[in-house]
This record gives sequence, C-alpha cells and structure tokens, in this order.
Amino acid sequence: VSGLSLSLFGAVFAHGELARGLDDAALLQALLDVEAGLARALARAGLVPPSAAEAVTRAARAASFSSAELAAAAVAAGNPVPALVKALRAALPPSAAEAVHTGATSQDIVDSALMVLAARALPALTNDLAAAAAACARLAEVHRGTIMLGRTLLQPATPITFGLKAAGWLHALDTARVALRELGRTQLLLQFGGAAGTLAVLGARGVEVARFLAEELELREPIMPWHTQRGPIAAWAGGLGGCAAAIGKIARDITLLAQAEVGELREAGGEGRGGSSTMPHKQNPIASIAAVSCTRRAPQLVATLLACAEQEHERAAGAWHAEWEPLLSLWALAGSAAAWLRESLAGLQVDTARMRHNFDALRGLPMAERVAGELAHKLGKAAAQALVRDASLAAAADGGGLQRALAAHADELARAGVSSEELAGWLDPSGYLGSADTFIDRALAAHAQAGHNS
Amino acid sequence: VSGLSLSLFGAVFAHGELARGLDDAALLQALLDVEAGLARALARAGLVPPSAAEAVTRAARAASFSSAELAAAAVAAGNPVPALVKALRAALPPSAAEAVHTGATSQDIVDSALMVLAARALPALTNDLAAAAAACARLAEVHRGTIMLGRTLLQPATPITFGLKAAGWLHALDTARVALRELGRTQLLLQFGGAAGTLAVLGARGVEVARFLAEELELREPIMPWHTQRGPIAAWAGGLGGCAAAIGKIARDITLLAQAEVGELREAGGEGRGGSSTMPHKQNPIASIAAVSCTRRAPQLVATLLACAEQEHERAAGAWHAEWEPLLSLWALAGSAAAWLRESLAGLQVDTARMRHNFDALRGLPMAERVAGELAHKLGKAAAQALVRDASLAAAADGGGLQRALAAHADELARAGVSSEELAGWLDPSGYLGSADTFIDRALAAHAQAGHNS
Amino acid sequence: VSGLSLSLFGAVFAHGELARGLDDAALLQALLDVEAGLARALARAGLVPPSAAEAVTRAARAASFSSAELAAAAVAAGNPVPALVKALRAALPPSAAEAVHTGATSQDIVDSALMVLAARALPALTNDLAAAAAACARLAEVHRGTIMLGRTLLQPATPITFGLKAAGWLHALDTARVALRELGRTQLLLQFGGAAGTLAVLGARGVEVARFLAEELELREPIMPWHTQRGPIAAWAGGLGGCAAAIGKIARDITLLAQAEVGELREAGGEGRGGSSTMPHKQNPIASIAAVSCTRRAPQLVATLLACAEQEHERAAGAWHAEWEPLLSLWALAGSAAAWLRESLAGLQVDTARMRHNFDALRGLPMAERVAGELAHKLGKAAAQALVRDASLAAAADGGGLQRALAAHADELARAGVSSEELAGWLDPSGYLGSADTFIDRALAAHAQAGHNS
Amino acid sequence: VSGLSLSLFGAVFAHGELARGLDDAALLQALLDVEAGLARALARAGLVPPSAAEAVTRAARAASFSSAELAAAAVAAGNPVPALVKALRAALPPSAAEAVHTGATSQDIVDSALMVLAARALPALTNDLAAAAAACARLAEVHRGTIMLGRTLLQPATPITFGLKAAGWLHALDTARVALRELGRTQLLLQFGGAAGTLAVLGARGVEVARFLAEELELREPIMPWHTQRGPIAAWAGGLGGCAAAIGKIARDITLLAQAEVGELREAGGEGRGGSSTMPHKQNPIASIAAVSCTRRAPQLVATLLACAEQEHERAAGAWHAEWEPLLSLWALAGSAAAWLRESLAGLQVDTARMRHNFDALRGLPMAERVAGELAHKLGKAAAQALVRDASLAAAADGGGLQRALAAHADELARAGVSSEELAGWLDPSGYLGSADTFIDRALAAHAQAGHNS
Repeated sequence: VSGLSLSLFGAVFAHGELARGLDDAALLQALLDVEAGLARALARAGLVPPSAAEAVTRAARAASFSSAELAAAAVAAGNPVPALVKALRAALPPSAAEAVHTGATSQDIVDSALMVLAARALPALTNDLAAAAAACARLAEVHRGTIMLGRTLLQPATPITFGLKAAGWLHALDTARVALRELGRTQLLLQFGGAAGTLAVLGARGVEVARFLAEELELREPIMPWHTQRGPIAAWAGGLGGCAAAIGKIARDITLLAQAEVGELREAGGEGRGGSSTMPHKQNPIASIAAVSCTRRAPQLVATLLACAEQEHERAAGAWHAEWEPLLSLWALAGSAAAWLRESLAGLQVDTARMRHNFDALRGLPMAERVAGELAHKLGKAAAQALVRDASLAAAADGGGLQRALAAHADELARAGVSSEELAGWLDPSGYLGSADTFIDRALAAHAQAGHNS
Repeated sequence: VSGLSLSLFGAVFAHGELARGLDDAALLQALLDVEAGLARALARAGLVPPSAAEAVTRAARAASFSSAELAAAAVAAGNPVPALVKALRAALPPSAAEAVHTGATSQDIVDSALMVLAARALPALTNDLAAAAAACARLAEVHRGTIMLGRTLLQPATPITFGLKAAGWLHALDTARVALRELGRTQLLLQFGGAAGTLAVLGARGVEVARFLAEELELREPIMPWHTQRGPIAAWAGGLGGCAAAIGKIARDITLLAQAEVGELREAGGEGRGGSSTMPHKQNPIASIAAVSCTRRAPQLVATLLACAEQEHERAAGAWHAEWEPLLSLWALAGSAAAWLRESLAGLQVDTARMRHNFDALRGLPMAERVAGELAHKLGKAAAQALVRDASLAAAADGGGLQRALAAHADELARAGVSSEELAGWLDPSGYLGSADTFIDRALAAHAQAGHNS
Repeated sequence: VSGLSLSLFGAVFAHGELARGLDDAALLQALLDVEAGLARALARAGLVPPSAAEAVTRAARAASFSSAELAAAAVAAGNPVPALVKALRAALPPSAAEAVHTGATSQDIVDSALMVLAARALPALTNDLAAAAAACARLAEVHRGTIMLGRTLLQPATPITFGLKAAGWLHALDTARVALRELGRTQLLLQFGGAAGTLAVLGARGVEVARFLAEELELREPIMPWHTQRGPIAAWAGGLGGCAAAIGKIARDITLLAQAEVGELREAGGEGRGGSSTMPHKQNPIASIAAVSCTRRAPQLVATLLACAEQEHERAAGAWHAEWEPLLSLWALAGSAAAWLRESLAGLQVDTARMRHNFDALRGLPMAERVAGELAHKLGKAAAQALVRDASLAAAADGGGLQRALAAHADELARAGVSSEELAGWLDPSGYLGSADTFIDRALAAHAQAGHNS
Repeated sequence: VSGLSLSLFGAVFAHGELARGLDDAALLQALLDVEAGLARALARAGLVPPSAAEAVTRAARAASFSSAELAAAAVAAGNPVPALVKALRAALPPSAAEAVHTGATSQDIVDSALMVLAARALPALTNDLAAAAAACARLAEVHRGTIMLGRTLLQPATPITFGLKAAGWLHALDTARVALRELGRTQLLLQFGGAAGTLAVLGARGVEVARFLAEELELREPIMPWHTQRGPIAAWAGGLGGCAAAIGKIARDITLLAQAEVGELREAGGEGRGGSSTMPHKQNPIASIAAVSCTRRAPQLVATLLACAEQEHERAAGAWHAEWEPLLSLWALAGSAAAWLRESLAGLQVDTARMRHNFDALRGLPMAERVAGELAHKLGKAAAQALVRDASLAAAADGGGLQRALAAHADELARAGVSSEELAGWLDPSGYLGSADTFIDRALAAHAQAGHNS
C-alpha cells in the first residue's frame, strides 16, 4: 500500500499511528465511506430503497478495489471519483448502482473524505500530544527546584529552573491540543453541494439529504457548500501548523541541551538508537532530531494551502487539486512529529548536576542583573548598571568570576553599605527565581483543565 | 514617517485605515505605551511612586523622540528597546527615570507593543470586513433570483444565481471576521517575563505587576510568559492568513467576471480609476486587482511566522527578530486587501442581462445534468448519461444547442415517453436551482448573527 | 511500489515518465548504485580487491531487498543507510562485505543517490519541455499573423497575434530548459566526505577515491564535501522552481483562453477526457488544469529547501532529513507539470475565428492607444489622450464602438485634418502589431539554438 | 525618506550599504532614470528632438518630486507610473513633455527600474560577500592545523580543523557570489514592450529603440518582452535566496560555537555591542544573530516571487504588483545579512585552546571511528565495530574515556597484536584529518580564481 512518503524515508516521516495510517487504503476507504454514507442518507430521505443503501454499504470496501486500476482510470477526469463511482456501480446490481453518487459531485466526495480522514486522524494526534504534555507535566513538577541556566540569544541570561522550561513546553503543547480539539468540534465539515453548489439534482430535498449525510459521516453540516470558500481548510492548516510549531520548539531545545558541551539532557538509547553508519560512539538524540525534520516541512505546506484558497468561481481550475496531498502531508508530518516528541520526552534523562555545573561554570555572571538591581537601591540604577557592567566584562575577560571582579569595586560597594555576605547572597540563584513557581503551578492547572486525553 | 511599504508602492499595499496607520510613529508610540503602562503598573503595586508613573506617562509621546536616532542607536543591541529606554530615561527627572523598564526585558516591550498595535488594528480590519460582508448580503438578497452560469474548472457547469455566489462570499467574510474577533478576545496577550521568563527582578510581586500591566494595556494576561512559545503569533498568523484567503477568492472572482468576454461585473470607475499610462480606453477593476496583489503575499508571511516559531531556549537567536516585520506586514496586507475589497464591492455594477445572455449562449448545455437526471428515471442512469453525453458533445461541436442535439435521439426519447414540452421544461434553469435559496437564507441568518460591526 | 504521491492522486501528480519513475524502487536502486560505485572506486584505488567490488555490484539490486524491512530498520538511525549497509553486507561473502561503505557516511550515500536520481530524471524533464517548446514553436510560426486581443490585468489591451503569445511561451520554456541543462552540467555533484567531511578513513587516498567515485556515478567531483553547504540543493530548487513557474503561466493562459466566454483555445478531448462525475456536457481542459495543480505546489517546496539550508556544523540535526522528500517531490511535480503541458499543447485546438470575433466585439476600443498616438501628432499628446479617453468611455458605456464615439468629436478631428478613411485605417489591428514579428523570429531563432532535444 | 523596513527595525533589516540605499528616493530615481533613458533612446532613433531628451534627463531628479504626492495619485491606476509621467510632463516645456514615456507601458518602467536598482545593489552585495569570503580565507589558512571537534546532528563526530570549517564557509560564499555575478551578466534585463508587448506605438522602430534604451540603462536587451514570463525574476529570486542560504548557515554556526558552553568563537564587542536592556553581563554575538534574522525571511520571499510567476496573458491582474516589494525586500535582506556576516567574521575571535579543550573533554570518543577502522584490519570490520561500540558506550556512560574503556578489552586487543602505544597513536586527532588540507587548498584556489572583488 502506497503512502505519502517513500517507504525508505517513512521511518522518519510516517512515524506513529496517525502517519502510518494515512495511506492509499485509508483514502480509498474514506472515499467509499462517503459514497456509502450518501446512499444511506438518500435512503433515509426516501429517495432510494433501503436495500440499495445496504448493498452500497456492503460493497464499499477498499479491499474490493484496486488503487492502481482506479489511479489509471483517474487520469481522464483529473480526480479519482468518476472512476471510483464507475467501479462501485459495476460491483452492484443495477438497482443499487442507480443509488450511487446521486446528487453529488466529485469534490463533495473528495472533500468529505478528507474530513473523514481528519476525524480519524485527530485522536491519534491529540493522544500523542497529551502523552507528551503529561511527560512535560511530570518534568515540571519534579524539576520545579532544579536550577539551570536561562539562555537568551543562545547566550547565558539569568537562572531559571528546568521545571519552568518544562512548564513552557507543557503549556504550548496543551494550547495546541486544545485548539485542535476545538477544530474537531467546529471544522470537521461535510462537503455536499452537487455540481455547482445548489444540490439541484435533489430538488427541494437537498438540505435534508445533507443533514442525513452529515449524520452518517459524523461530520458537521455547514451553512452552505464551501467548494471554493476554503475557510475550513485554512483553519486546519493553521491548527496543524501551530501544532508543528509547538513541537518544533521543544524538539530544538532538546537537541541543544543534548549537545555534548551542554549535556543537560539525553534521550534514551537502546538497540542502535541514534547510531551512525560509520561512527561507533554515536548516540544521536534521534527522536527530537526526527521531530524537527518533520516540523521544518510544515510551514510551507500551510502556505501552499493558504495560497490555494484563491479558488475560481464554483470549483477551482487547479488550486483545489493542489490541496489534496499538502493537507494530508501536513496531518502526517504533525502526527509523526508528535509521535517522535512523545518518545523523546518519555525517555528523557535529565542531568541535574550538569545543569548546576553549567550554571556555576559562569561564576556568577548570570546573577549580574540581580546584583545590579540590588545595588540600584543604593547607587541608583544608572550607576549600578555601569558598575556591574564593568565588573561583568572584567569577569568575562579574565574568567575569574563576578564576585572577584566586584571586589575591584570594593570601596564603592562599602560606601554603599554592601557587605560581602550580602553580596554573596545576591549570587545565589535559588533566591532569584521570581514567579517561576507560580508559572509552573498555572501551567499545571491549565493542563489539568485541558484533560489528559483528547 | 516611514512605513512597511515604499511610499510609491504604498498606494496599493498601504491602503485603508489599518495599513496607513502601521508606521514608525505608531510602533514607537506602542513601545512607549508599554513602558508607560509598566510604570503605572509598578505604581499600582507600590513599587514606584505614582508621580514617577505619571511623569513616564507624560513623557511617553512618540513625537518627543526621533526614530532615526533611536534606529541608529538600536544597531548595537539588535533591537530598539535599550536605546528607547535610555532616551526615555534621559527625558525624565532621575526619580522617574528609575521607574522605567523595571522588571522588563526588551522582548516584553516589543511583543506587548506588537499586541497593542494588533488591538488597535483589529477594529479597522473587522470594520472593512463587515462593510464588505454587508455589500455581499445586499447582493445576495437582491440577486437571489438572478440566473447565472455556475462555472467549475473555469468551464460551464450548471445554473446558479448571483445571489448564491454572493452568499458564498458573504459567509466566507463573516467566518473570517468572527474568527478574528475571537482571536481579539483570546490572543491579544501581554508579554511580561523579564530577562529569562521568571520576572525575577520583581521578586514575589511579578504576577501582580503583570496583572496590572495587562489591565493598563487592555491586553489579556497569559498563563505564563510566551517568549519562545509562539502560539499567539501562530494564531494571529493563521487568522490573518485565513482572512486574506477569503478576500483573495472574492477578488479573483470579480476580476474574472469583469473580463470583457464575460462582462457580468464591473467596478465603479471615476477620476482615472483603473486607467493606464498609455491606453486611453482602460477601465481596469483596480480595487479587486489590488486586493489580489495584497492577498498573494500573505501565505508566505504566515509561513515565515510559523517557521520562526522554532525558538531556542528562553529567547531565540534570530527567529524572534525575524517575526517583527512579517507580522506587521501581514496585518497591513490583510487590512489593505479588506479595504480594497470593500471599495470594489461597494461600487460593483451587476449586469444581470449579461449573466443571462452568457447562460443562454451555451444553448442548454449547462442543463445537461438535469436532462440526464430526468431521463434516468426513464432510461436508467447509465443509459441516460450516455445519451446526454452524446448529445452534449454534438451540441458543443456544432454549436447548435442541446435541444437540437437531443432531437437526434427523438425516437429513443419518444419511446421513453418524453414529450418535447417536458424536455423544454427541463432546459429552464429557474427550475433547477435546488437549495440555492435556502443557502442564501442561511448565510444571511448567520450574517445577522455575526453582527454588522466588529 | 510506493511513490511520493498517494496512488489515487498520482494520476495528477505522478504523471509522465519522470514522476512515475520516482518511487521506492528507484530510490533504493540509487542508494545501492552509490554503494556499488564506491566499492568499484575503492577497487580502482587498490583499497579493496576487484572481486569484492564485482560482488558488491552484482548484489546491489533493489529487487533483492525489501523496502519495508529496510524502512522498519531505519527508525533507529533516522535514515535508511545503516540498515541498507547491514543488509547489503549480509548478502555478500565476508571478504566483499568488508568492502562495503568504506570511507562513507550515511549522508554521502543519500546525497549522492539523490544526485543520481536527478541525473536520471533530467532527460525526461528536458524532453517534455523540448516537446512542449516545439509545439509552441509551431504555434508561433503558424499563427504569426493571427490577430487576437492582448489582455492586461484581465482586460482588453491592444492587438497582438497568437503567434506572439506562443513565442512568449516558447522562449520561457526554452529558457527554463537551458537553465536545467546548465545545472545538469554543473550541479550534479558527488557527495563524499565521510563522517565529518575529512575522508579521514581513507587517509591520504580520499580525494583519489572521490574522483573515481564521481566517475563511476557520472557525477561531478566537487571542490570539497558540501554536507552542510547546500548550494547545490538550492541551485536545483531554483531551477526546478523556475521551470514550474514557466509551465504554470502557460497552463493558466490556456485555461483562461478555454473559458466558454472566450473560447479561443480548446484541449483535445477523447475517452472521457475532462469529464465530470455528474455533468454529461463537461469537457474540462484537464491537462492544463492538472499542470496548474502541479505548479502551484512548487514554490513552497523551493522555500522548504532554502529554509533547510541553514544546516548546523558538519551535519544538520533535522534540516538535512527534511530536504529528502521536498526535493524529490519538486522533481516529480515539475516533471508531471511538463508532461501535462506537453499533452495540452500537443492537442491544442486554436479557434482563430473566435480570436478575431472577440477582438472585433470590442468595436475598436483596443485601438484607442493607436488613435490617440496618431492624433497626438496633430493635437499634441495631452489633448489627443483626453479626446480618445472621452470617446473610449462613451463607447464602453453605450457599446457603440470607438468609431461612432469618435464621430462625436468630428469637428475637432476635421480641424486636425483627420479624414474618416484615415481614422478607419487606424482601427485596423493588422497595422498595429509593431515588432511582434521580430520577436517571434528571435524566439524561434533562440529555440533553434537551444536545440530540439535535451 | 521611507524604506522597506520600519526605521526602528531597520537597524537589523536595513543594515549595510545595499539595504540602506533601497528606499523611496532610490526607487523614484530609478523610475525617472528609465523615463529619461527612454527619452534619450527615442532621440537616438530620431523620434524626438535631442533637446527634448536633454530636458527630460535634466528634469528627472527624484528630489524634484514628492513621493507622498505621487503615492496619493498612484491609487487610481494601482501603480505609480501614470502619476509620475504626469508630474514629469508637468515639469517640462510642452515640446519635451511630448517625448516622455513614448512607446512604453507602466510595467516597462517599473520592471526596468527594478533591474536598474538591482544593477546598483549588486556591487554592494558582492563586495560584502567578497569581504566575508576573504575573512574566511584567512581563517582557513591560519587555522589549517587547529584541531576542533566535528559535530554532526549537534553531537560529537570525528576531528576536523577550524580551517576546514572556514574553507566550507568560504567556498559557499564564493559560490553564491559567482552565481550572483553571473546573474549580473545575464539577467539584468531591460523590459520594453509597450501596452501588450508589441511595441506597436513605435511601429517598425521598436526594437531599435529597445536596443538604445538597453544601452542607456546599461541593461541587457532581451529576446522579447517578458511582461508575463517571469524567468528573470525567478532567476534573481533563486540567486538571492541561495546567497541568503549560504550566509545563514555560517551565521548559525557562529552562534552555536559562541554558546558559553562551547566558547570556541566570540564576536568582537565594543560600545554596548550585544548588550541587553536589563542584563549587564550580556555580550550577545549580535552580528551573526542579526544575519540569521535576515536570512530566515528570505526563503518565503523567494516562494512569493515564484508563486507570482503565474501571470495571466499580457499583464497579470495582481501577481505582477505583488512582486515589487518582495523582490526589493529580498535584495535588502540578502544585503543586510551579508553586511552583518562581514562584520561578524571581521572581528571573530577564535579560541583555539577551547577548541582543543572541547575535543579532549570527550576523552577519545571522537576517535572511535578511527580505532574501529584500524582494528578492522586485524579483527574484521564487524567485530571491530562491535568492540569499539561496546567500549564507546561504556566510556560515554562512565565518563572515563575511550582508552580506559578499551582496556577492558585488553586481552582481545593483545591477541590482535595491538600494542598500547599503537592504540594511543590512534587516539591522536592530528593523524586523522584525511583530506582536510587538500580541501582547504582547493577552496583557497577556487577563491583566488573567483577574485577578491565583485
């Protein structure tokens, strides 16, 4: 069965339940499910016999059809539906064959099938996001007091805790998950409008059949057909793009913290995980790297979908077709990324000693802001900033540490009434964490509210 | 005052209230407003004297500062805030100068200022969208019965009404507007975390000051700082991208319907509007063309913002800076597009006779689906489709119309009991509009519910 | 065998020789070819026995390996090479197994395999481009005198010939083809650097083996390994993106000229080509529509590849992997688009009468520029422009044509010495084609120089 | 004067000679230069009096016109040319006014002006690239023997030299520069086609005037007008995008090597360079960070330009306008990035001791590949890989280093005849640099060939 990735690259890009499931068979089944749902909806409206609907439903099994043959036949129309309708009808007795596809146009079937696929993919994605979030929540709780270096512009900033960093990851994942769930409630929309969006074939019964069809497919009935009003596609693009963005940030942090020179995080290894074709010592954090590989491809797929939203008249001449694979790829890549991140977080090894070591190796420099802030009460802000900047530059230049560099300003400090005990206290990061704990609490509370599963 | 577009191109890309307002002065004022709001928040928390907060607020006027000088000074830090803080402090007495920027980091000021700008830009955007939607609603109502050709893949499909087309435009605009309003309620977020997101400078008072600051700026207080969790930026990117997508589709339809060979719509002209530098006869529908010019640039700006969401640690080394202009450009382009579309729709001239003429010129071909559907009751679906396809191809080939082509099948039709009166009735488009009216009603009802202003 | 598109959508997106060939089997074979080429290169350098190289070459057949098993094994390393090397060694006697992959790193194999695939894909692409160009050249020659309306901003401009339009298409296709051929000469580059780009495993023999390997694979030897210097990938991205851009413009023109209301071009039909699932009369120009579907996806794939060029140190942590599928997809989409365009152009039916009819239907308005230009000699430019603008607006408003509208200015024209014969002459488009013929000649000459095959 | 960036952000994004120069005044002057060039070309063809051409040339000074007024007047036409032509004519005596804009259409002026701007911007860009490359060449030469850790997937790989890394940077910059220079030779194209690309206004004299105009503007004369064949724009997009890609990689490497925990590179500081609004100790490598900020925005601008290449008929209804600012922004961002990188490299401080320290801190692990390779001669490849993998994992786990971990396999090594002296020798990185020196030599030779200036 053929999927959205070449098999050999699928190890990275078709990872996890969602992405592995998005293949030809799944698409074919979804297309058939829409045709079958339509037959049942027509039967509920009394427009075709119930027996015909049952026959269509029975026949609508992907395994009964050949993707390859359908694909060959799809060239003429430029989309697979006419060939599929023909094949489905051929597999049915005449009375049931008549019932197939009544009132629909190809786009109704494809768009609705993509929504059915989305509905099926969503739980796997939110489950992986929820599991990743749960891992972050544990890290936030456990490492609430674990001092580490805050880093801005890839340079030392002020102290944070690893719990705070994990809380930031947590809240981003929860926000993305909640947004996707909301899309699941509002944007899993039926498409059903017939040739030009009027449902003319069904006369006055169109909206009734549409309501039944939405029920059959467990999709939401839209205000009107959206053949060339691609708001729902744009909404999913945005949601999946936001999800990938949240994942990519976390995965990037992990790869950076796993650098040998930083050494604060490590992914679980095992069975050649993270190995190389030539270097025996390699233990690459391959789960977070693979997650980044997936998320890097997402933004431009979002752009493709948005660019394709400029659709002409009642059906676009090219832009609609161009959506199909980018939309499914976006699902697959978001799903793969979530599965990789979940794995990475599940086995993450935290080296708290190394976190502290890296902080202490800077010999007080990350506390410069605090020292300046405390001194400002005595010297004024400008003078305090100037003094501490001087000392910081000196400390950075000679590697002797901030405390020693401040000693060069001992007279000024003494005049300001700063004792060396007081100064030493200012250099303790555990007293300079501000609202970190509150932020962790809030993120955990929001997580509890978001719920643990999808 | 310098804006986001070169002036000479700004006629297109800085059109309307929103876009014209997004310039250096507005940004500078927003940055100052955040600093002033912070001073007042600190005063409310008792951390600085009220008089200092008042002094800062009085001093925080864009007109008092030189963008050019600030820009020159901004090179060293890579962002304008340190230079601005220095200039603002220099404009204050020492006691008030001390109050400036306490607890904040540059990113707090810039991110919050961009949110303040967003809050200020949003009403102009939703107003233009609402006005454009109102114009569509009028068209949907007035042209509820105006027959026109439905076009799929840029080829004749089945009949629709212009009212239905306008209803589709209407609902897309309303959906985009409602989504933006929802973002206005949830995603106009304060940024306030200090150097590394702990608000350490403020000790235990950080979250209290954050709450006051959010109130002062009329922004929402987030769960925690989002310095490198760019969900809010991604959400705005998605909302603005979706808005541009909705506009682009409508503007494209107008340019297509305004083609001389189609001639169904025309933009209001006047004062050289749509003129050329060399062709005296030109009356280009310049408003819809300009709208397309704007919307074509939006998808990739969304992609840039999503790609930049992979931000390292506690502040990104490059990706944060890279967001600034694309975000503001996206606002400006969405705003310009909305303003252009509003103008285009406001003066749109509908040639209903031409609509009917274009439909009739196809001599029955757009009714082929209906004829096949009616015949299916008598001949079965497959036979009916085959007969009508034959007739349609013949009609298309000789230009003689469907009715005449069907006459070649007179015997078969007679055997099936189809009278020529019946056949003629099937060729009347007004009887083949299905649920068009219902969809119009629904879109109008949703519009009423969405409200007429933002 | 699994490809880059879902089979059911592959009818559109895996069209033509190039795209159909880019599947798992082709990738696997290319990877194996690189390993086999390396064994032979090592043998030429005397580093492994010739018999080992022969054995590796014999064993390196895609059919002997299971993509699915390799894919499963690829998860651990994040790329397929370690698993492939293991499987290849397992298929060889120990002495030959030792020879496999010596000196190489996974990226050497994947990057070189992608270049081998590119080398194999290029002729199919340039052949299709050459065939499409040849069709355009015929159109340019045959329709050198076929008057049609020039259209700017989708509105009537001045007369052109269809030959000129075809010449523009022709030259764009030739330019893209020549650029791709040039890339074929300069940017089909070997990748061979070993673990960190030093070829350390091969001691002093690295560059010698690299030269032999380049010869074996018929790739160009680079100045140095380009593991994280992605200039060659960016160059191919640019070339393929430019090719897609050239195709997209032509396909869009065809879809616009095939609109029923324009009716100047028609694609060849046949066997349900361009049919619909519900409308029997449909004859969509599906080849040009499918071409647009392909080209719309190309720009963002180029962006992904460019964005991924920011690769860390000696091998990227994510960005390299993220290139694989977008690069191959870009090849496949450019190839599909070229194949579709070739088909569209090969069967294009030109309705020259309709071209003239559409021109004449504007009743002289497209000649307004000429009339103004001629009058300028008598009245001055400003007065002439004003007079003709007045007349044009009147003509457009009442539909009576430019000549009649100019009659309202008969006195002024008479004073200027303009006879009605002279005026009538100015309204003849055949006398107002400027350098059209010269441009056609030049484009044909450049085409002859570019050669007819790749 | 207004530019492409808000002034306050221009410190980052309008850095260096090229970007600072791309403002309203420059655009206005370029537009005027094209009009003046056209007047002179017409005069050379004898179509207007020389005195008129001289008067136009004298009048065509940006300082004589108000961008703001022109911008206001540009709204009607949707591009600035009609307003500019009117203003220019108004500034001239009637006889000269007649000569202005003869034969041209707005797009001729704008496209040619953008090419004139490109021609003016190119030397600044290639100069900065050449200076950055020269800095890299010095680093490559000086640090040809400086051992440092090669890093793949952000993890330790095998030894390289800093000279090799610098050679990689060098060659990427030279390749980008050579490609841009080649574009300068082939793709600085005149646009001149008149209303619909026939130059009809000029009768038989069109191509002659075009040749003269190309000479006047020092642009290349194209085969034919390229109003809607955007190959030249796509070519520049590709070249500038490739340039940004090359810069971004280098800047990213610098920011990573400047991390406190790595500490191998440092940017020159001075005058608050890299400072923070709140942290006195900050010394951010702001030049490389700013370069990344610029390069991150480039790929999507390339995509916008490629997407806009689908232009309808003889002038696009929206897509042409949409190119203007993205193209200029791409120039400005590439130029800013190059200027920032040049600064970063010019002052780069290399800590060779830290490079060695970081390598040694891994206690032999980066030599695992070599040890395995040498042992393979004695134990066979598989056994050697297994042994060294065991030892490497043990060494990584206990931090005791590879040599000690190998001691656990002393018996096996002894049986294989490996002495401890031999083993110690294998752990010396200076003996495991393969072809690094050759690659440096080649990159330096290619640099010499590329020339030191543009």
